[in-house]
Amino acid sequence: MASLELTIGNKNYSSWSMRPWVLMRQAGLPFSERLLRFDDFQPGSPFKTALAALDSAGKVPVLRDGEVTVWDSLAICEYLAERFPDAGLWPADRAARAHARSLCAEMHAGYGALRNHCPMNIEALLPEVGARVLREQPGVAEDLARIVGLWSRLLERHGGPMLFGDFGIADAYFAPVVMRIRTYALPVPPAVAAYLDRVEALPGVADWVAGARAEKSYVAIDEPYRSERSVQLRWPD
Amino acid sequence: MASLELTIGNKNYSSWSMRPWVLMRQAGLPFSERLLRFDDFQPGSPFKTALAALDSAGKVPVLRDGEVTVWDSLAICEYLAERFPDAGLWPADRAARAHARSLCAEMHAGYGALRNHCPMNIEALLPEVGARVLREQPGVAEDLARIVGLWSRLLERHGGPMLFGDFGIADAYFAPVVMRIRTYALPVPPAVAAYLDRVEALPGVADWVAGARAEKSYVAIDEPYRSERSVQLRWPD
Ligand SMILES: N[C@@H](CCC(=O)N[C@@H](CS)C(=O)NCC(=O)O)C(=O)O
Ligand SMILES: N[C@@H](CCC(=O)N[C@@H](CS)C(=O)NCC(=O)O)C(=O)O
Repeated sequence: MASLELTIGNKNYSSWSMRPWVLMRQAGLPFSERLLRFDDFQPGSPFKTALAALDSAGKVPVLRDGEVTVWDSLAICEYLAERFPDAGLWPADRAARAHARSLCAEMHAGYGALRNHCPMNIEALLPEVGARVLREQPGVAEDLARIVGLWSRLLERHGGPMLFGDFGIADAYFAPVVMRIRTYALPVPPAVAAYLDRVEALPGVADWVAGARAEKSYVAIDEPYRSERSVQLRWPD
Repeated sequence: MASLELTIGNKNYSSWSMRPWVLMRQAGLPFSERLLRFDDFQPGSPFKTALAALDSAGKVPVLRDGEVTVWDSLAICEYLAERFPDAGLWPADRAARAHARSLCAEMHAGYGALRNHCPMNIEALLPEVGARVLREQPGVAEDLARIVGLWSRLLERHGGPMLFGDFGIADAYFAPVVMRIRTYALPVPPAVAAYLDRVEALPGVADWVAGARAEKSYVAIDEPYRSERSVQLRWPD
């Protein structure tokens, strides 16, 4: 079996990279990680130059599996589900699998307000920003309500602990949303808060978060709200 | 086998609906169509009310297959590929399939500039708008260059007639882009122009276009450039 290599961005910021990484780590799939630090993403920047060598869209994540290159987080998840059919990455039940795919594809193309106004910043704690954004940006409140509704129904229907019972692509796909809810202290009902706790306790998620905390990076382009790294930390240094 | 029902929006405008519809029609999968006319998408509007009865994100397309409901165009395509394994919806080759999935997932989350500034409007012909948008919106030129590059390499690698040889999800996924290139008369090299011709000649695409032309609808929210339906028609009435 050829070895899998996943190229990712900064763990603190790269929500798209987090998904396949958490999926693979939590599912116990063997892979090596290649981290490209975010820069200004200008043509010719170190980040862009490193990616130009890969068949990709010039973005992270990118998965290499021997001769095969897959880019884009959703395509990577589908590829892995096919490559490791026994890992249970999608739900085994046909209707549940269709449902999980719908959720992930909706996330992939949607939730623009939440994404724009609450970018992932794992180490930061920005409750005032969260409260303000919720007040001023109706789209964020709508996105949050949609997610809370979906998660609540799924946790009730499948009985937890994860969205479709056991851990799978849908949980990995929404892990960055869990991080955003924490950073911006967005209000969620108790059943959803308990799900957030369980997601953060998954070893695959905890490993990623530990990596994010160790980076101690400050990338201006990803920091609309903080002026320097050492302020508003969720886990003060 | 339960019967498949695909809920879609106006054929002239609904780029997301076009993909699974063209896929199913061109691949010869049996299905019935349920068309919900676009309105103002306000809560309680006829469009939203009809969709509220389905387990979905309140958007089209939605596929029903007996007890199973799938929403979001990409999830629908994956569902169909699994449901009809002999229809060849994804390329048979593993690397090509990974590549096709990457393209579709990238399209699903990306190409925001092309989408915003050149919304699908099949019956319209807006070359001046296209020329202006290309001049004024660098993002549109970048999106177009990326697409032209991807298509050119694929047509060369697989030898046509479609992106991965035979017709499949990738072609259905990009069919709305073909429509946009036509409506806005965006410049493409000859090999790509020949691909556009071949896509438009596919019976599944031609059927959708005929439906779009027959609608003769004018939905203000989808018409940033025309003031009424009877002007700037690609096929004058
Ligand atoms: N749809 C893509 C999006 C990937 C993406 O936007 N990645 C960001 C980092 S999180 C990136 O590489 N940005 C570089 C750029 O935009 O130039 C996916 O799901 O993988
Ligand atoms: N990611 C979704 C997007 C679907 C979508 O935005 N559909 C539009 C029509 S083309 C819609 O139903 N809009 C209604 C609304 O936004 O309220 C998909 O691929 O199916």
